[in-house]
Amino acid sequence: MTSPMKLSDLAASIGAELSGEGSVEVTSCATLEEAQPGQVSFLTNPKYVKLIETTRASAVVVAPNIKSDRVPLLKAKDAYYAFRNAVVALHGFRKHPHAGVHPKAHVDASATIGENSVLYPGVYVGARARIGRDCILYPNVVVYDDCVIGDRVIIHAGCSIGQDGFGHATHRGEHHKIPQTGNAVIEDDVEMGANCSIDRATLGSTVIGKGTKFGNSIVIGHGSKIGPHGLFVALVGVAGSVTIGRHAVVAGQVGIAGHLKIGDQVTIAAQAGVMDNIEDKSIVIGQPAMPAGQARRVYSLFTQLPEIVERMKKLEKLAEKYMDAAKADSETAAAASSDATPPGA
Amino acid sequence: MTSPMKLSDLAASIGAELSGEGSVEVTSCATLEEAQPGQVSFLTNPKYVKLIETTRASAVVVAPNIKSDRVPLLKAKDAYYAFRNAVVALHGFRKHPHAGVHPKAHVDASATIGENSVLYPGVYVGARARIGRDCILYPNVVVYDDCVIGDRVIIHAGCSIGQDGFGHATHRGEHHKIPQTGNAVIEDDVEMGANCSIDRATLGSTVIGKGTKFGNSIVIGHGSKIGPHGLFVALVGVAGSVTIGRHAVVAGQVGIAGHLKIGDQVTIAAQAGVMDNIEDKSIVIGQPAMPAGQARRVYSLFTQLPEIVERMKKLEKLAEKYMDAAKADSETAAAASSDATPPGA
Amino acid sequence: MTSPMKLSDLAASIGAELSGEGSVEVTSCATLEEAQPGQVSFLTNPKYVKLIETTRASAVVVAPNIKSDRVPLLKAKDAYYAFRNAVVALHGFRKHPHAGVHPKAHVDASATIGENSVLYPGVYVGARARIGRDCILYPNVVVYDDCVIGDRVIIHAGCSIGQDGFGHATHRGEHHKIPQTGNAVIEDDVEMGANCSIDRATLGSTVIGKGTKFGNSIVIGHGSKIGPHGLFVALVGVAGSVTIGRHAVVAGQVGIAGHLKIGDQVTIAAQAGVMDNIEDKSIVIGQPAMPAGQARRVYSLFTQLPEIVERMKKLEKLAEKYMDAAKADSETAAAASSDATPPGA
Repeated sequence: MTSPMKLSDLAASIGAELSGEGSVEVTSCATLEEAQPGQVSFLTNPKYVKLIETTRASAVVVAPNIKSDRVPLLKAKDAYYAFRNAVVALHGFRKHPHAGVHPKAHVDASATIGENSVLYPGVYVGARARIGRDCILYPNVVVYDDCVIGDRVIIHAGCSIGQDGFGHATHRGEHHKIPQTGNAVIEDDVEMGANCSIDRATLGSTVIGKGTKFGNSIVIGHGSKIGPHGLFVALVGVAGSVTIGRHAVVAGQVGIAGHLKIGDQVTIAAQAGVMDNIEDKSIVIGQPAMPAGQARRVYSLFTQLPEIVERMKKLEKLAEKYMDAAKADSETAAAASSDATPPGA
Repeated sequence: MTSPMKLSDLAASIGAELSGEGSVEVTSCATLEEAQPGQVSFLTNPKYVKLIETTRASAVVVAPNIKSDRVPLLKAKDAYYAFRNAVVALHGFRKHPHAGVHPKAHVDASATIGENSVLYPGVYVGARARIGRDCILYPNVVVYDDCVIGDRVIIHAGCSIGQDGFGHATHRGEHHKIPQTGNAVIEDDVEMGANCSIDRATLGSTVIGKGTKFGNSIVIGHGSKIGPHGLFVALVGVAGSVTIGRHAVVAGQVGIAGHLKIGDQVTIAAQAGVMDNIEDKSIVIGQPAMPAGQARRVYSLFTQLPEIVERMKKLEKLAEKYMDAAKADSETAAAASSDATPPGA
Repeated sequence: MTSPMKLSDLAASIGAELSGEGSVEVTSCATLEEAQPGQVSFLTNPKYVKLIETTRASAVVVAPNIKSDRVPLLKAKDAYYAFRNAVVALHGFRKHPHAGVHPKAHVDASATIGENSVLYPGVYVGARARIGRDCILYPNVVVYDDCVIGDRVIIHAGCSIGQDGFGHATHRGEHHKIPQTGNAVIEDDVEMGANCSIDRATLGSTVIGKGTKFGNSIVIGHGSKIGPHGLFVALVGVAGSVTIGRHAVVAGQVGIAGHLKIGDQVTIAAQAGVMDNIEDKSIVIGQPAMPAGQARRVYSLFTQLPEIVERMKKLEKLAEKYMDAAKADSETAAAASSDATPPGA
């Protein structure tokens, strides 16, 4: 894809230590199994260590403790990050087919778009919205009026930022719309997958914190505030007025109920249903979401319920036997005591 | 945002009883914690009653039983609805940047659009579709051919109304598309969040009933009929041919299997998996969805499974002891009985 | 909708055996309950067999063993497929309001669009993307650069094909984007509901196999490979690097964790959480997903947990009684043994 690069130059550029011939030229990246000569691969999962012995890659980015006689290694403490940098060096990021606001995008006259931002066809930016610099808004992204997008934000196709939150006052059986007077704020360096929906706040702002990354089809309710540097996988639903701290890891299809406070560095497992506040550094799993240790025990026993109930049935059988025996005993005792009754009584 | 309003006028306009100085001027709304002088706030959750003592708001909408010496109160039986009306009075609803059909929307020549409806850029309305009056279709909403949208309907960005339902006849291992000849009907006063997908029916109509409100990313299968005045939170999936009565409350990420009949005034808790019909006025919770009372007991015990199994282990230990004792007894008895055997037998 | 057709002609065209008067004319299809004279209906679920006695349909497509004196029958081994063919014969598929690429679609100059494909307004096709022949891309579908769409593919409104996968290398608390150098490949005869999101691969391709049908709002992670002829209902989330075999049936809201291998002809029940590889021909249910037999036992006991714990409480009570009795016995025994002690001891 790009011009070839010497291994020695690549090593220098990604901060890796080269073990092997530096003059080898590489042009692109691939997995250990699919790599061809001229390609760089990586090994971060020890499970795949044997593939080093069979890969056709011209070099492999690895952790410092990995050794090989047959393939040049690029050793780095954080091998995954070093490989990422190799991908950047060899492939680079997408070249956009146009600069700035595409004529088929629609930007309200009162909105502002920062320098060097790219808006694809079909993008809509509403009144008074502000888009920072170096942003990429892919086709058909919608940014409602008054919303604020930081710098270097990437929003993939079909996302909607700042639609009205789910606010209705039910009166005499009908739901009356509450004007959603707030906005949505997407801070610097956020990336969002396709078809996400970020509600604007009723009052104030919904906030997606700096550096947070979203997968596809994530829904964030009005007034929620997501801390910086979170990772949210896909199909996650966060209700309204939720606060989530920094460095959250939220797996696919997680649901978080309204008005909760989730601490910093919290990990939430896939499909979990969060119904209570979560403290800093907690890992929670399950529906309802429980601390990981408890959840692992609970789910392990859950899948064994048939065996557990079998064990209980054995106890019940034994209990029946015991009661029969006790009954027999007491009858024997009664008989004995009646036997013991002096004949003349 | 708007021109200031005297508290006495606001009280009159929202049908509240003013306790305090009526000449105070207010301009906007905010939460109790964030409100500044000149802003109106509200209290509907008794949990936050203490904030009345510290809020900087110029007035608070409250239930009739709330008292305060320090801040003017706007008392109303349905305080949340009264506050909603205050937001409407002070903020109003969104002013659209254009009237009617935006030139960057696409409306088929055979479609009809009612008076005063606003279609944003990127909206698509297919052949013979009918949009009522006073509707708002936000950017990139798609209404397929022959679909019908009532009056005062609000559809947020990226929704698709009337795409083909999931209808395929599998024959010899291949899935053959069944023409989806029906349509989708969105009745009056419905509001829909971003990125919802409403299938058209195979035969007949998929119907979203009058006044029903949807959050984001809701999927409704072909031929389903949702009753009037429902509330559906987000990421809900309703399969095909489902009937849901009036005033349903369906929380986030709920799934409802096909061909079911859900009664009136039914509440379904978040992430529930509905696999059976539900009677009127039921509340269901869980996967599989159960009546609320049962579900609360079941889930409470579920999270206690480790303790429950510990208790069972104790019983098992005791049972072992009992069996040992019984064995010992019977051996003793046998010995005793052998002892009792007359020597000369 | 179309010109009338004689039953004898319809029978011939769909390969059914007609039992009844062949000169009857029919014009369209409807359900047994809603059909009017002139309409053809179908019966595939034995549960509805009685409706044959009351339907107003002019003919009913049925399995060969069904009989009726009152309504002409169109008998076919695969009645559902025969009915599907009747719908095709009488209604046909959607007539598009335009041919080829609509002027309001945007196709990059380096992209290629096959013969007879229809691209609706708002569609975006990126650089070097290739769309096959006879495809339909409904409004606002986005196909990113370098992606490949086969022949006869139907993609409904708002889908995004080939956005960047969720790839970030976390280094010193910040998430660094990994260029997603691969693409997404949608093979021949795939149909996709509205608002689906198919990630492009980091390296190589994400693949949706030939003839696979997706419902709405399905998310497929980067590098996953879905086999041919699958059925995926709606709101399904498949993480990255998953392999799914042929003829999968994946119900609504299923989640599949990353790097798993799902075999051929696997069925996954609604809302299941798949955390392990699945063998060919398995049916799995539940969170976590279990083999169907186990899952049915587990969930049946799960919903009975309150009764199960009641049974355990009974055992505990009995155990207490037993222990009291044992204690009393041992006291009696002790007393007896003390009684038995010879006075002079």
